[in-house]
Amino acid sequence: MGEVGQSCEIQIRVRYAECDPMGVLHHAKFLEYFEMGRTELLRRTGVPYRQWEEGGYYFLVARIACQYRAPARYDDLLTLTTTIERITRARIDHSYRITRDGTLICEATSTLACVNRQGRLIAIPERLTRGSAAPD
Amino acid sequence: MGEVGQSCEIQIRVRYAECDPMGVLHHAKFLEYFEMGRTELLRRTGVPYRQWEEGGYYFLVARIACQYRAPARYDDLLTLTTTIERITRARIDHSYRITRDGTLICEATSTLACVNRQGRLIAIPERLTRGSAAPD
Amino acid sequence: MGEVGQSCEIQIRVRYAECDPMGVLHHAKFLEYFEMGRTELLRRTGVPYRQWEEGGYYFLVARIACQYRAPARYDDLLTLTTTIERITRARIDHSYRITRDGTLICEATSTLACVNRQGRLIAIPERLTRGSAAPD
Amino acid sequence: MGEVGQSCEIQIRVRYAECDPMGVLHHAKFLEYFEMGRTELLRRTGVPYRQWEEGGYYFLVARIACQYRAPARYDDLLTLTTTIERITRARIDHSYRITRDGTLICEATSTLACVNRQGRLIAIPERLTRGSAAPD
Repeated sequence: MGEVGQSCEIQIRVRYAECDPMGVLHHAKFLEYFEMGRTELLRRTGVPYRQWEEGGYYFLVARIACQYRAPARYDDLLTLTTTIERITRARIDHSYRITRDGTLICEATSTLACVNRQGRLIAIPERLTRGSAAPD
Repeated sequence: MGEVGQSCEIQIRVRYAECDPMGVLHHAKFLEYFEMGRTELLRRTGVPYRQWEEGGYYFLVARIACQYRAPARYDDLLTLTTTIERITRARIDHSYRITRDGTLICEATSTLACVNRQGRLIAIPERLTRGSAAPD
Repeated sequence: MGEVGQSCEIQIRVRYAECDPMGVLHHAKFLEYFEMGRTELLRRTGVPYRQWEEGGYYFLVARIACQYRAPARYDDLLTLTTTIERITRARIDHSYRITRDGTLICEATSTLACVNRQGRLIAIPERLTRGSAAPD
Repeated sequence: MGEVGQSCEIQIRVRYAECDPMGVLHHAKFLEYFEMGRTELLRRTGVPYRQWEEGGYYFLVARIACQYRAPARYDDLLTLTTTIERITRARIDHSYRITRDGTLICEATSTLACVNRQGRLIAIPERLTRGSAAPD
């Protein structure tokens, strides 16, 4: 899962199908982008999310809050920065920042809960948080 | 699965998020609509698709062909007609027709393959096709 | 736009394509549902959103916050209640509640900003808020 | 628009949100991938699609046909090859091939029609097809 403060930057090209009749990236699509950011952040910590699921650990989004600052358009090349803000026994908080050539497009935060195959809340394995988890 | 010739009609309201910068329903979204049509057709034959999956039968889309005749727009109320065209040992062909107030918007056909949890092709259970399956 | 406190209830059938490998409705899709709720709320106040855009008024999502309480699955029939919470000179706040047979699935709030074709913030026309707008 | 035979290869990472409860890339999503392929093919010919639309030329998908050969999964890195097969006065045919480590995932073809802002069929400007257009 990585450590608090760990961060990762990726670039995303806005698809035509993701833009709406106003000609701008639809606001729901940003949540898919955040998920892409978490995927890459996890990959860099050595355990891709696919392996977590194969091992019986699932991360459900429990809460998300998003501020849209400026519109993005088809074919824009966006930069998404994803940061781990807090890790507790069974939850992880991330923050997100999307920019285009330095212009802020969107800011957001989310809380994920660690659950097993049956959807029950379980502790994040210690070896994966490198002992950085705070009490829940 | 129902019988060859069986048909079902549903109405679908076009969502804002489904339309693109041209202001029209994005062409990829029609495939989601066809899936909704198959869901309702199955429900009316008495065995909803969710029960098929719980029983270990999955239907994979193997082929799809689509002709777009006229654009649809946000908030349009469309009529989708889904028809079973052919049933073989492990495959089902459907046809689709989408209209708006009598104007033809889109026509399509698809082939689905019946597979088990491991993704291996299996026979559609006879009781579900009511003996109407043709040789594959 | 309607008045503060005005509310509208719609039913939404979860599509297969909207569910993810965990088998649950993907968290980004809820935002499309909220948009459907606003569309129906506007229709009932007499001026569908399509007419607003034709008249040069656009509503951009400026902020959204969402709490996911329980998972929804393919083919679930959900009830979405959309309520107008606050109207100011150029902004409207909505709240959302999604349930399935009385079980709470999701709660959310959003702020929309009224803009013109050039994306500049403009006042919501008085005749549309029926004089119920509070100072911004 | 480029010339017949011109081709372009891009890599696409499958998103979690694009996979369905079977755990595989949803069949409708491939059409968005093909659109990404066309976007990159156009960029390499010197006139990005965004500039075409700004100039009043729109390309509508008139027909698509797709054969799904093997499933793709979350986090798979796919290779999409997009090729121009035929250019007539107002139409362009493309073919698509998606592979993962050499395994064929999907093959498809499409026809696009060139239309103006009013949606009326218009000729593709000669300078853009470099004189390679066949009679319609």
